Amino acid sequence: MEMSKRIEGALERAVLHATATGRPKKVSDALRYAIFPGGARVRPRLCLAVAASCGDSHPRAADAAAAAMEMLHCASLVHDDLPCFDDADLRRGKPTVHAAYSEPLAVLVGDALIILAFETIARECALTPQLIAPLIGTVGKAVGMPHGLIAGQAWESETGDIPLAEYHRAKTASLFTGACIAGAVAADADPNQWHGVGDALGAAYQVADDLRDFAGSQEELGKPCGQDAMNQRPNAVHENGLDATLANLKGLVGDAVAAIPECPGAPMLRKLIEGEATRLVPKELAQSAA
Amino acid sequence: MEMSKRIEGALERAVLHATATGRPKKVSDALRYAIFPGGARVRPRLCLAVAASCGDSHPRAADAAAAAMEMLHCASLVHDDLPCFDDADLRRGKPTVHAAYSEPLAVLVGDALIILAFETIARECALTPQLIAPLIGTVGKAVGMPHGLIAGQAWESETGDIPLAEYHRAKTASLFTGACIAGAVAADADPNQWHGVGDALGAAYQVADDLRDFAGSQEELGKPCGQDAMNQRPNAVHENGLDATLANLKGLVGDAVAAIPECPGAPMLRKLIEGEATRLVPKELAQSAA
Repeated sequence: MEMSKRIEGALERAVLHATATGRPKKVSDALRYAIFPGGARVRPRLCLAVAASCGDSHPRAADAAAAAMEMLHCASLVHDDLPCFDDADLRRGKPTVHAAYSEPLAVLVGDALIILAFETIARECALTPQLIAPLIGTVGKAVGMPHGLIAGQAWESETGDIPLAEYHRAKTASLFTGACIAGAVAADADPNQWHGVGDALGAAYQVADDLRDFAGSQEELGKPCGQDAMNQRPNAVHENGLDATLANLKGLVGDAVAAIPECPGAPMLRKLIEGEATRLVPKELAQSAA
Repeated sequence: MEMSKRIEGALERAVLHATATGRPKKVSDALRYAIFPGGARVRPRLCLAVAASCGDSHPRAADAAAAAMEMLHCASLVHDDLPCFDDADLRRGKPTVHAAYSEPLAVLVGDALIILAFETIARECALTPQLIAPLIGTVGKAVGMPHGLIAGQAWESETGDIPLAEYHRAKTASLFTGACIAGAVAADADPNQWHGVGDALGAAYQVADDLRDFAGSQEELGKPCGQDAMNQRPNAVHENGLDATLANLKGLVGDAVAAIPECPGAPMLRKLIEGEATRLVPKELAQSAA
Protein backbone atom coordinates (compact mmCIF):
# COMPACT_ATOMS: atom_id res chain seq x y z
CA MET A 1 0.00 0.00 0.00
CA GLU A 2 1.20 3.50 -0.72
CA MET A 3 2.90 5.05 2.29
CA SER A 4 0.64 8.05 2.73
CA LYS A 5 -2.44 5.83 2.57
CA ARG A 6 -1.02 3.68 5.38
CA ILE A 7 -0.29 6.76 7.49
CA GLU A 8 -3.67 8.41 6.99
CA GLY A 9 -5.40 5.09 7.58
CA ALA A 10 -3.54 4.47 10.83
CA LEU A 11 -4.27 7.99 12.04
CA GLU A 12 -7.92 7.66 11.05
CA ARG A 13 -8.28 4.41 13.03
CA ALA A 14 -6.61 5.96 16.07
CA VAL A 15 -8.62 9.18 15.99
CA LEU A 16 -11.84 7.25 15.45
CA HIS A 17 -11.20 5.33 18.64
CA ALA A 18 -11.21 8.64 20.54
CA THR A 19 -13.96 10.46 18.70
CA ALA A 20 -16.41 7.80 17.45
CA THR A 21 -19.10 8.85 19.94
CA GLY A 22 -18.76 12.49 18.85
CA ARG A 23 -19.09 13.45 22.52
CA PRO A 24 -18.17 15.85 23.95
CA LYS A 25 -18.59 17.49 20.57
CA LYS A 26 -16.16 20.41 20.64
CA VAL A 27 -13.14 18.48 21.86
CA SER A 28 -13.91 15.66 19.39
CA ASP A 29 -14.02 18.14 16.52
CA ALA A 30 -10.90 19.94 17.75
CA LEU A 31 -8.95 16.69 18.06
CA ARG A 32 -9.75 15.76 14.48
CA TYR A 33 -8.93 19.32 13.36
CA ALA A 34 -5.47 19.03 14.95
CA ILE A 35 -4.63 15.91 12.91
CA PHE A 36 -6.43 16.33 9.57
CA PRO A 37 -5.53 17.48 6.99
CA GLY A 38 -1.91 16.88 7.86
CA GLY A 39 1.35 18.54 6.98
CA ALA A 40 4.10 16.59 5.25
CA ARG A 41 3.83 13.69 7.78
CA VAL A 42 7.65 13.60 7.74
CA ARG A 43 8.09 11.63 10.95
CA PRO A 44 5.63 8.81 10.24
CA ARG A 45 6.97 8.53 6.67
CA LEU A 46 10.47 8.15 8.07
CA CYS A 47 9.23 5.52 10.53
CA LEU A 48 7.50 3.49 7.82
CA ALA A 49 10.42 3.93 5.41
CA VAL A 50 12.86 2.50 7.95
CA ALA A 51 10.47 -0.36 8.72
CA ALA A 52 10.13 -1.06 4.98
CA SER A 53 13.90 -0.93 4.54
CA CYS A 54 14.25 -3.58 7.24
CA GLY A 55 11.65 -5.93 5.75
CA ASP A 56 8.47 -4.63 7.44
CA SER A 57 7.82 -7.87 9.28
CA HIS A 58 5.09 -6.37 11.51
CA PRO A 59 3.34 -3.72 9.40
CA ARG A 60 0.55 -3.15 11.91
CA ALA A 61 3.06 -2.34 14.66
CA ALA A 62 4.92 -0.03 12.27
CA ASP A 63 1.67 1.75 11.39
CA ALA A 64 0.87 2.18 15.09
CA ALA A 65 4.32 3.57 15.86
CA ALA A 66 4.11 5.93 12.88
CA ALA A 67 0.67 7.18 13.92
CA ALA A 68 1.84 7.60 17.52
CA MET A 69 4.84 9.70 16.47
CA GLU A 70 2.62 11.93 14.31
CA MET A 71 0.00 12.37 17.04
CA LEU A 72 2.71 13.35 19.52
CA HIS A 73 4.16 15.79 17.00
CA CYS A 74 0.71 17.33 16.46
CA ALA A 75 0.14 17.51 20.23
CA SER A 76 3.38 19.45 20.60
CA LEU A 77 2.34 21.86 17.85
CA VAL A 78 -1.03 22.48 19.48
CA HIS A 79 0.57 23.22 22.86
CA ASP A 80 3.49 25.15 21.34
CA ASP A 81 1.06 27.46 19.54
CA LEU A 82 -0.69 28.42 22.82
CA PRO A 83 -0.62 32.06 23.94
CA CYS A 84 1.83 31.25 26.76
CA PHE A 85 4.33 29.82 24.23
CA ASP A 86 4.43 31.11 20.64
CA ASP A 87 0.96 32.69 20.67
CA ALA A 88 0.52 31.65 17.02
CA ASP A 89 -2.74 32.16 15.15
CA LEU A 90 -1.87 30.23 11.98
CA ARG A 91 -0.62 26.69 11.40
CA ARG A 92 -0.63 24.81 8.09
CA GLY A 93 -2.53 27.73 6.56
CA LYS A 94 -5.48 27.59 8.94
CA PRO A 95 -6.26 28.95 12.42
CA THR A 96 -4.44 27.15 15.24
CA VAL A 97 -6.52 24.94 17.55
CA HIS A 98 -6.80 27.51 20.33
CA ALA A 99 -7.70 30.24 17.81
CA ALA A 100 -10.38 28.06 16.22
CA TYR A 101 -11.76 26.38 19.38
CA SER A 102 -10.42 28.01 22.60
CA GLU A 103 -7.42 27.76 24.85
CA PRO A 104 -8.88 25.15 27.26
CA LEU A 105 -9.82 22.91 24.34
CA ALA A 106 -6.32 23.27 22.86
CA VAL A 107 -4.76 22.16 26.16
CA LEU A 108 -7.15 19.19 26.32
CA VAL A 109 -6.60 18.20 22.67
CA GLY A 110 -2.84 18.07 23.24
CA ASP A 111 -3.34 15.95 26.36
CA ALA A 112 -5.80 13.65 24.59
CA LEU A 113 -3.39 13.12 21.68
CA ILE A 114 -0.53 12.16 24.01
CA ILE A 115 -2.76 9.59 25.72
CA LEU A 116 -4.07 8.34 22.38
CA ALA A 117 -0.54 7.83 21.03
CA PHE A 118 0.32 5.34 23.78
CA GLU A 119 -3.10 3.68 23.71
CA THR A 120 -2.70 3.16 19.96
CA ILE A 121 0.59 1.30 20.32
CA ALA A 122 -0.79 -0.93 23.08
CA ARG A 123 -3.98 -1.69 21.16
CA GLU A 124 -2.57 -2.21 17.67
CA CYS A 125 0.18 -4.54 18.86
CA ALA A 126 -2.25 -7.19 20.12
CA LEU A 127 -0.62 -9.77 17.83
CA THR A 128 2.94 -8.60 18.59
CA PRO A 129 2.83 -7.97 22.36
CA GLN A 130 6.62 -8.33 22.60
CA LEU A 131 6.90 -5.03 20.70
CA ILE A 132 4.78 -2.93 23.06
CA ALA A 133 7.39 -2.21 25.74
CA PRO A 134 10.24 -1.38 23.32
CA LEU A 135 7.98 0.79 21.16
CA ILE A 136 6.59 2.69 24.13
CA GLY A 137 10.10 3.05 25.53
CA THR A 138 11.33 4.44 22.19
CA VAL A 139 8.43 6.81 21.70
CA GLY A 140 8.46 7.90 25.35
CA LYS A 141 12.16 8.68 25.21
CA ALA A 142 11.66 10.72 22.04
CA VAL A 143 8.99 12.96 23.55
CA GLY A 144 9.45 12.81 27.32
CA MET A 145 11.87 13.99 29.95
CA PRO A 146 14.83 14.34 30.18
CA HIS A 147 15.97 14.10 26.54
CA GLY A 148 12.86 14.33 24.38
CA LEU A 149 10.64 16.97 22.85
CA ILE A 150 9.29 18.20 26.21
CA ALA A 151 12.84 18.83 27.40
CA GLY A 152 13.52 20.72 24.17
CA GLN A 153 10.55 23.00 24.75
CA ALA A 154 11.52 23.37 28.41
CA TRP A 155 15.03 24.59 27.51
CA GLU A 156 13.27 27.71 26.19
CA SER A 157 12.21 28.49 29.77
CA GLU A 158 15.76 28.32 31.13
CA THR A 159 17.73 31.47 31.80
CA GLY A 160 21.43 31.89 31.15
CA ASP A 161 23.39 30.06 28.49
CA ILE A 162 21.34 27.34 26.82
CA PRO A 163 23.36 24.42 25.46
CA LEU A 164 22.32 24.80 21.83
CA ALA A 165 23.22 21.31 20.63
CA GLU A 166 21.36 19.68 23.53
CA TYR A 167 18.38 21.98 23.01
CA HIS A 168 18.14 21.22 19.27
CA ARG A 169 18.68 17.51 19.74
CA ALA A 170 15.83 17.38 22.27
CA LYS A 171 13.43 19.70 20.46
CA THR A 172 13.81 18.39 16.91
CA ALA A 173 16.20 15.48 16.42
CA SER A 174 14.65 13.34 19.17
CA LEU A 175 11.47 12.76 17.14
CA PHE A 176 13.42 11.86 14.00
CA THR A 177 15.66 9.49 15.91
CA GLY A 178 12.59 8.04 17.64
CA ALA A 179 10.82 7.58 14.29
CA CYS A 180 13.81 5.70 12.82
CA ILE A 181 14.29 3.50 15.86
CA ALA A 182 10.58 2.73 16.18
CA GLY A 183 10.52 1.70 12.52
CA ALA A 184 13.46 -0.63 13.10
CA VAL A 185 11.95 -2.08 16.29
CA ALA A 186 8.66 -2.75 14.50
CA ALA A 187 10.57 -4.72 11.84
CA ASP A 188 12.65 -6.78 14.31
CA ALA A 189 15.83 -4.99 13.16
CA ASP A 190 18.67 -3.81 15.39
CA PRO A 191 17.59 -0.32 16.51
CA ASN A 192 21.12 0.75 17.45
CA GLN A 193 22.11 0.94 13.80
CA TRP A 194 19.59 3.70 13.20
CA HIS A 195 20.64 6.36 15.70
CA GLY A 196 22.97 8.04 13.20
CA VAL A 197 20.33 8.49 10.52
CA GLY A 198 17.83 10.00 12.93
CA ASP A 199 20.36 12.31 14.57
CA ALA A 200 21.69 13.69 11.27
CA LEU A 201 18.22 14.05 9.79
CA GLY A 202 16.93 15.76 12.91
CA ALA A 203 19.82 18.20 12.85
CA ALA A 204 19.19 18.82 9.14
CA TYR A 205 15.53 19.47 9.79
CA GLN A 206 16.38 21.93 12.56
CA VAL A 207 18.70 23.84 10.20
CA ALA A 208 16.06 23.75 7.46
CA ASP A 209 13.49 25.08 9.92
CA ASP A 210 15.78 27.98 10.77
CA LEU A 211 16.28 28.64 7.05
CA ARG A 212 12.56 28.60 6.40
CA ASP A 213 11.82 30.87 9.34
CA PHE A 214 14.45 33.25 7.98
CA ALA A 215 13.74 33.12 4.26
CA GLY A 216 10.44 31.37 3.63
CA SER A 217 7.14 33.02 2.85
CA GLN A 218 3.97 32.74 4.89
CA GLU A 219 2.24 31.41 1.78
CA GLU A 220 4.75 28.60 1.40
CA LEU A 221 4.87 27.69 5.08
CA GLY A 222 1.25 28.20 6.14
CA LYS A 223 2.44 30.13 9.19
CA PRO A 224 4.21 33.45 9.81
CA CYS A 225 7.99 33.67 9.28
CA GLY A 226 10.56 35.57 11.29
CA GLN A 227 9.25 34.11 14.56
CA ASP A 228 12.73 33.28 15.87
CA ALA A 229 13.94 36.86 15.61
CA MET A 230 10.68 38.11 17.12
CA ASN A 231 10.85 35.65 20.04
CA GLN A 232 14.62 36.06 20.46
CA ARG A 233 15.17 32.38 19.87
CA PRO A 234 18.48 31.10 18.50
CA ASN A 235 18.51 30.68 14.70
CA ALA A 236 21.42 29.20 12.72
CA VAL A 237 21.14 31.79 9.93
CA HIS A 238 21.45 34.68 12.36
CA GLU A 239 24.43 33.02 14.00
CA ASN A 240 26.39 31.64 11.04
CA GLY A 241 25.13 33.46 7.96
CA LEU A 242 23.15 32.12 5.02
CA ASP A 243 25.88 30.44 2.96
CA ALA A 244 27.36 28.55 5.89
CA THR A 245 23.88 27.43 6.94
CA LEU A 246 23.04 26.11 3.46
CA ALA A 247 26.37 24.25 3.33
CA ASN A 248 25.71 22.81 6.77
CA LEU A 249 22.27 21.54 5.68
CA LYS A 250 23.80 19.82 2.66
CA GLY A 251 26.44 18.21 4.84
CA LEU A 252 23.89 16.94 7.36
CA VAL A 253 21.70 15.39 4.65
CA GLY A 254 24.85 13.69 3.35
CA ASP A 255 25.58 12.42 6.86
CA ALA A 256 22.06 11.01 7.16
CA VAL A 257 22.33 9.19 3.84
CA ALA A 258 25.80 7.87 4.71
CA ALA A 259 24.53 6.57 8.07
CA ILE A 260 21.91 4.27 6.52
CA PRO A 261 22.99 0.73 7.43
CA GLU A 262 23.10 -2.10 4.90
CA CYS A 263 19.52 -3.32 4.47
CA PRO A 264 17.27 -4.42 1.59
CA GLY A 265 15.61 -1.03 1.28
CA ALA A 266 18.68 1.21 1.60
CA PRO A 267 18.50 2.65 -1.97
CA MET A 268 14.81 3.55 -1.55
CA LEU A 269 15.53 5.22 1.78
CA ARG A 270 18.45 7.22 0.37
CA LYS A 271 16.17 8.53 -2.36
CA LEU A 272 13.45 9.44 0.12
CA ILE A 273 15.84 11.38 2.35
CA GLU A 274 17.40 13.27 -0.55
CA GLY A 275 13.94 14.17 -1.85
CA GLU A 276 12.89 15.33 1.58
CA ALA A 277 15.99 17.54 1.82
CA THR A 278 15.03 19.33 -1.40
CA ARG A 279 11.51 19.89 -0.16
CA LEU A 280 12.76 21.45 3.07
CA VAL A 281 14.68 24.31 1.50
CA PRO A 282 12.60 27.44 0.85
CA LYS A 283 11.94 27.85 -2.88
CA GLU A 284 13.84 31.13 -3.09
CA LEU A 285 16.99 29.46 -1.78
CA ALA A 286 16.63 26.18 -3.64
CA GLN A 287 18.99 27.22 -6.44
CA SER A 288 21.85 28.20 -4.18
CA ALA A 289 21.35 25.04 -2.15
CA ALA A 290 21.56 22.76 -5.19
CA MET B 1 5.35 -3.09 52.96
CA GLU B 2 3.09 -0.34 54.15
CA MET B 3 0.89 1.00 51.36
CA SER B 4 2.00 4.61 51.43
CA LYS B 5 5.66 3.55 51.32
CA ARG B 6 4.96 1.49 48.22
CA ILE B 7 3.19 4.41 46.55
CA GLU B 8 5.84 7.02 47.37
CA GLY B 9 8.57 4.57 46.35
CA ALA B 10 6.94 3.84 42.99
CA LEU B 11 6.42 7.55 42.33
CA GLU B 12 10.00 8.33 43.35
CA ARG B 13 11.37 5.71 40.92
CA ALA B 14 9.20 7.03 38.10
CA VAL B 15 10.02 10.68 38.70
CA LEU B 16 13.72 9.90 39.04
CA HIS B 17 13.66 8.35 35.59
CA ALA B 18 12.52 11.71 34.18
CA THR B 19 14.57 14.05 36.35
CA ALA B 20 17.78 12.23 37.25
CA THR B 21 19.91 14.46 35.02
CA GLY B 22 18.41 17.58 36.62
CA ARG B 23 18.29 19.11 33.12
CA PRO B 24 16.59 21.26 32.03
CA LYS B 25 16.54 22.44 35.63
CA LYS B 26 13.26 24.35 35.92
CA VAL B 27 11.02 21.71 34.37
CA SER B 28 12.75 18.98 36.41
CA ASP B 29 12.10 20.92 39.61
CA ALA B 30 8.54 21.72 38.58
CA LEU B 31 7.78 18.09 37.75
CA ARG B 32 8.94 16.97 41.19
CA TYR B 33 7.00 19.86 42.78
CA ALA B 34 3.80 18.66 41.08
CA ILE B 35 4.09 15.18 42.62
CA PHE B 36 5.72 15.69 46.05
CA PRO B 37 4.56 16.08 48.73
CA GLY B 38 1.34 14.43 47.68
CA GLY B 39 -2.27 14.77 48.70
CA ALA B 40 -4.16 11.79 50.07
CA ARG B 41 -3.02 9.56 47.15
CA VAL B 42 -6.57 8.19 47.11
CA ARG B 43 -6.42 6.67 43.61
CA PRO B 44 -3.14 4.75 43.99
CA ARG B 45 -4.23 3.54 47.43
CA LEU B 46 -7.44 2.22 45.92
CA CYS B 47 -5.46 0.53 43.14
CA LEU B 48 -3.08 -1.19 45.56
CA ALA B 49 -5.91 -2.09 47.95
CA VAL B 50 -7.80 -3.86 45.16
CA ALA B 51 -4.61 -5.62 44.04
CA ALA B 52 -3.97 -6.70 47.64
CA SER B 53 -7.56 -7.91 48.03
CA CYS B 54 -7.08 -10.09 44.96
CA GLY B 55 -3.81 -11.65 46.14
CA ASP B 56 -1.30 -9.12 44.73
CA SER B 57 0.36 -11.66 42.46
CA HIS B 58 2.39 -9.03 40.55
CA PRO B 59 3.19 -6.27 43.05
CA ARG B 60 5.57 -4.45 40.71
CA ALA B 61 2.87 -4.14 38.07
CA ALA B 62 0.41 -2.96 40.71
CA ASP B 63 2.90 -0.34 41.92
CA ALA B 64 3.43 0.87 38.34
CA ALA B 65 -0.30 1.13 37.70
CA ALA B 66 -0.82 2.97 41.00
CA ALA B 67 1.98 5.42 40.23
CA ALA B 68 0.65 5.95 36.70
CA MET B 69 -2.85 6.76 37.97
CA GLU B 70 -1.46 9.26 40.48
CA MET B 71 0.81 10.94 37.91
CA LEU B 72 -2.13 11.30 35.53
CA HIS B 73 -4.26 12.72 38.35
CA CYS B 74 -1.50 15.23 39.19
CA ALA B 75 -1.12 16.13 35.49
CA SER B 76 -4.83 16.91 35.33
CA LEU B 77 -4.59 19.12 38.43
CA VAL B 78 -1.65 21.06 36.98
CA HIS B 79 -3.49 21.70 33.71
CA ASP B 80 -6.85 22.29 35.42
CA ASP B 81 -5.27 25.01 37.60
CA LEU B 82 -4.03 26.95 34.53
CA PRO B 83 -5.34 30.48 33.96
CA CYS B 84 -7.44 29.33 31.00
CA PHE B 85 -9.27 26.78 33.22
CA ASP B 86 -9.70 27.41 36.97
CA ASP B 87 -6.97 30.07 37.25
CA ALA B 88 -6.10 28.71 40.70
CA ASP B 89 -3.16 30.01 42.72
CA LEU B 90 -3.26 27.46 45.54
CA ARG B 91 -3.26 23.67 45.59
CA ARG B 92 -2.53 21.44 48.57
CA GLY B 93 -1.67 24.57 50.55
CA LYS B 94 1.09 25.77 48.25
CA PRO B 95 1.29 27.80 45.03
CA THR B 96 0.10 25.93 41.94
CA VAL B 97 2.75 24.90 39.39
CA HIS B 98 2.08 27.79 37.02
CA ALA B 99 2.08 30.26 39.92
CA ALA B 100 5.38 28.91 41.24
CA TYR B 101 7.16 28.25 37.92
CA SER B 102 5.27 29.79 34.94
CA GLU B 103 2.46 28.90 32.60
CA PRO B 104 4.65 27.30 29.88
CA LEU B 105 6.36 25.09 32.47
CA ALA B 106 2.99 24.05 33.89
CA VAL B 107 1.80 22.97 30.43
CA LEU B 108 5.04 21.02 29.91
CA VAL B 109 4.94 19.39 33.36
CA GLY B 110 1.44 18.10 32.67
CA ASP B 111 2.52 16.74 29.30
CA ALA B 112 5.65 15.16 30.78
CA LEU B 113 3.63 13.45 33.52
CA ILE B 114 1.21 11.94 31.01
CA ILE B 115 4.11 10.53 29.00
CA LEU B 116 5.85 9.31 32.16
CA ALA B 117 2.74 7.46 33.33
CA PHE B 118 2.68 5.27 30.22
CA GLU B 119 6.47 4.85 30.15
CA THR B 120 6.34 3.68 33.77
CA ILE B 121 3.85 0.90 33.05
CA ALA B 122 5.84 -0.32 30.04
CA ARG B 123 9.14 -0.23 31.92
CA GLU B 124 8.08 -1.70 35.25
CA CYS B 125 6.22 -4.61 33.66
CA ALA B 126 9.36 -6.08 32.08
CA LEU B 127 8.73 -9.35 33.92
CA THR B 128 4.97 -9.35 33.27
CA PRO B 129 4.76 -8.17 29.63
CA GLN B 130 1.32 -9.75 29.24
CA LEU B 131 -0.01 -7.03 31.61
CA ILE B 132 1.25 -4.03 29.65
CA ALA B 133 -1.52 -3.84 27.03
CA PRO B 134 -4.43 -4.37 29.46
CA LEU B 135 -2.97 -1.91 31.98
CA ILE B 136 -2.36 0.76 29.34
CA GLY B 137 -5.82 0.11 27.92
CA THR B 138 -7.36 0.51 31.39
CA VAL B 139 -5.41 3.63 32.29
CA GLY B 140 -5.89 5.17 28.83
CA LYS B 141 -9.63 4.64 29.00
CA ALA B 142 -9.76 6.24 32.44
CA VAL B 143 -8.03 9.44 31.34
CA GLY B 144 -8.49 9.70 27.56
CA MET B 145 -11.26 10.34 25.09
CA PRO B 146 -14.17 9.73 24.83
CA HIS B 147 -15.07 8.58 28.37
CA GLY B 148 -12.14 9.54 30.62
CA LEU B 149 -10.90 12.52 32.58
CA ILE B 150 -10.12 14.60 29.46
CA ALA B 151 -13.70 14.17 28.28
CA GLY B 152 -14.88 15.23 31.74
CA GLN B 153 -12.88 18.44 31.56
CA ALA B 154 -14.01 18.99 27.98
CA TRP B 155 -17.69 18.81 28.96
CA GLU B 156 -17.05 22.12 30.77
CA SER B 157 -16.41 23.72 27.35
CA GLU B 158 -19.73 22.57 25.90
CA THR B 159 -22.64 24.94 25.66
CA GLY B 160 -26.28 24.02 26.27
CA ASP B 161 -27.42 21.26 28.57
CA ILE B 162 -24.55 19.19 29.88
CA PRO B 163 -25.46 15.58 30.76
CA LEU B 164 -24.51 15.75 34.44
CA ALA B 165 -24.15 12.03 35.08
CA GLU B 166 -21.94 11.56 32.03
CA TYR B 167 -19.86 14.61 32.96
CA HIS B 168 -19.30 13.45 36.54
CA ARG B 169 -18.58 9.89 35.53
CA ALA B 170 -15.92 11.08 33.08
CA LYS B 171 -14.39 13.77 35.26
CA THR B 172 -14.23 11.92 38.58
CA ALA B 173 -15.49 8.33 38.60
CA SER B 174 -13.39 7.27 35.60
CA LEU B 175 -10.14 7.49 37.58
CA PHE B 176 -11.61 5.56 40.52
CA THR B 177 -12.97 2.87 38.24
CA GLY B 178 -9.64 2.79 36.40
CA ALA B 179 -7.73 2.47 39.67
CA CYS B 180 -9.90 -0.49 40.78
CA ILE B 181 -9.69 -2.26 37.45
CA ALA B 182 -5.93 -1.69 37.10
CA GLY B 183 -5.44 -3.17 40.58
CA ALA B 184 -7.47 -6.23 39.60
CA VAL B 185 -5.64 -6.62 36.27
CA ALA B 186 -2.27 -6.41 38.04
CA ALA B 187 -3.36 -9.26 40.32
CA ASP B 188 -4.69 -11.52 37.52
CA ALA B 189 -8.25 -11.08 38.84
CA ASP B 190 -11.38 -10.59 36.75
CA PRO B 191 -11.55 -6.81 36.18
CA ASN B 192 -15.26 -6.86 35.31
CA GLN B 193 -16.17 -7.53 38.94
CA TRP B 194 -14.68 -4.20 39.99
CA HIS B 195 -16.64 -1.72 37.88
CA GLY B 196 -19.32 -1.30 40.54
CA VAL B 197 -16.91 -0.38 43.32
CA GLY B 198 -15.12 2.22 41.21
CA ASP B 199 -18.32 3.75 39.87
CA ALA B 200 -19.93 4.11 43.30
CA LEU B 201 -16.75 5.40 44.90
CA GLY B 202 -16.17 7.87 42.10
CA ALA B 203 -19.71 9.16 42.43
CA ALA B 204 -19.23 9.42 46.22
CA TYR B 205 -16.02 11.35 45.75
CA GLN B 206 -17.72 13.76 43.35
CA VAL B 207 -20.47 14.41 45.90
CA ALA B 208 -17.87 14.82 48.67
CA ASP B 209 -15.96 17.26 46.47
CA ASP B 210 -19.11 19.31 46.00
CA LEU B 211 -19.71 19.24 49.77
CA ARG B 212 -16.18 20.36 50.49
CA ASP B 213 -16.32 23.12 47.92
CA PHE B 214 -19.56 24.27 49.55
CA ALA B 215 -18.75 23.86 53.23
CA GLY B 216 -15.03 23.23 53.66
CA SER B 217 -12.45 25.76 54.76
CA GLN B 218 -9.41 26.85 52.76
CA GLU B 219 -7.27 25.73 55.70
CA GLU B 220 -8.69 22.23 55.61
CA LEU B 221 -8.58 21.87 51.81
CA GLY B 222 -5.37 23.72 50.95
CA LYS B 223 -7.22 25.55 48.19
CA PRO B 224 -10.02 28.13 48.01
CA CYS B 225 -13.64 27.00 48.48
CA GLY B 226 -16.75 28.22 46.72
CA GLN B 227 -15.13 27.76 43.30
CA ASP B 228 -18.17 26.01 41.81
CA ALA B 229 -20.49 28.90 42.55
CA MET B 230 -17.89 31.37 41.30
CA ASN B 231 -17.31 29.44 38.05
CA GLN B 232 -21.03 28.64 37.62
CA ARG B 233 -20.29 24.94 37.66
CA PRO B 234 -22.93 22.44 38.76
CA ASN B 235 -22.71 21.50 42.46
CA ALA B 236 -24.91 18.87 44.13
CA VAL B 237 -25.43 20.97 47.27
CA HIS B 238 -26.77 23.91 45.26
CA GLU B 239 -29.04 21.60 43.34
CA ASN B 240 -30.36 19.23 46.02
CA GLY B 241 -29.66 20.92 49.35
CA LEU B 242 -27.29 19.91 52.13
CA ASP B 243 -29.27 17.13 53.85
CA ALA B 244 -30.10 15.29 50.65
CA THR B 245 -26.46 15.55 49.53
CA LEU B 246 -25.15 14.10 52.80
CA ALA B 247 -27.65 11.26 52.58
CA ASN B 248 -26.64 10.63 48.97
CA LEU B 249 -22.98 10.43 49.95
CA LYS B 250 -23.76 7.89 52.66
CA GLY B 251 -25.75 5.82 50.20
CA LEU B 252 -23.00 5.85 47.59
CA VAL B 253 -20.36 4.73 50.08
CA GLY B 254 -22.72 1.92 51.07
CA ASP B 255 -23.09 1.00 47.39
CA ALA B 256 -19.31 0.89 46.98
CA VAL B 257 -18.88 -1.37 49.98
CA ALA B 258 -21.71 -3.62 48.84
CA ALA B 259 -20.19 -3.93 45.38
CA ILE B 260 -16.90 -5.42 46.64
CA PRO B 261 -16.77 -8.94 45.20
CA GLU B 262 -15.86 -11.99 47.26
CA CYS B 263 -12.08 -11.99 47.61
CA PRO B 264 -9.51 -12.68 50.36
CA GLY B 265 -9.08 -9.01 51.17
CA ALA B 266 -12.71 -7.92 51.12
CA PRO B 267 -12.94 -7.03 54.86
CA MET B 268 -9.76 -4.89 54.64
CA LEU B 269 -11.08 -3.10 51.59
CA ARG B 270 -14.45 -2.43 53.21
CA LYS B 271 -12.68 -0.84 56.17
CA LEU B 272 -10.49 1.29 53.90
CA ILE B 273 -13.43 2.61 51.94
CA GLU B 274 -15.46 3.42 55.05
CA GLY B 275 -12.47 5.23 56.54
CA GLU B 276 -11.96 7.17 53.34
CA ALA B 277 -15.62 8.23 53.36
CA THR B 278 -15.24 9.76 56.82
CA ARG B 279 -12.12 11.65 55.74
CA LEU B 280 -13.92 13.14 52.75
CA VAL B 281 -16.63 14.94 54.68
CA PRO B 282 -15.70 18.47 55.81
CA LYS B 283 -15.12 18.54 59.57
CA GLU B 284 -18.00 20.94 60.18
CA LEU B 285 -20.44 18.52 58.60
CA ALA B 286 -18.98 15.30 59.95
CA GLN B 287 -21.48 15.08 62.79
CA SER B 288 -24.57 15.38 60.65
CA ALA B 289 -23.06 12.87 58.21
CA ALA B 290 -22.42 10.27 60.89
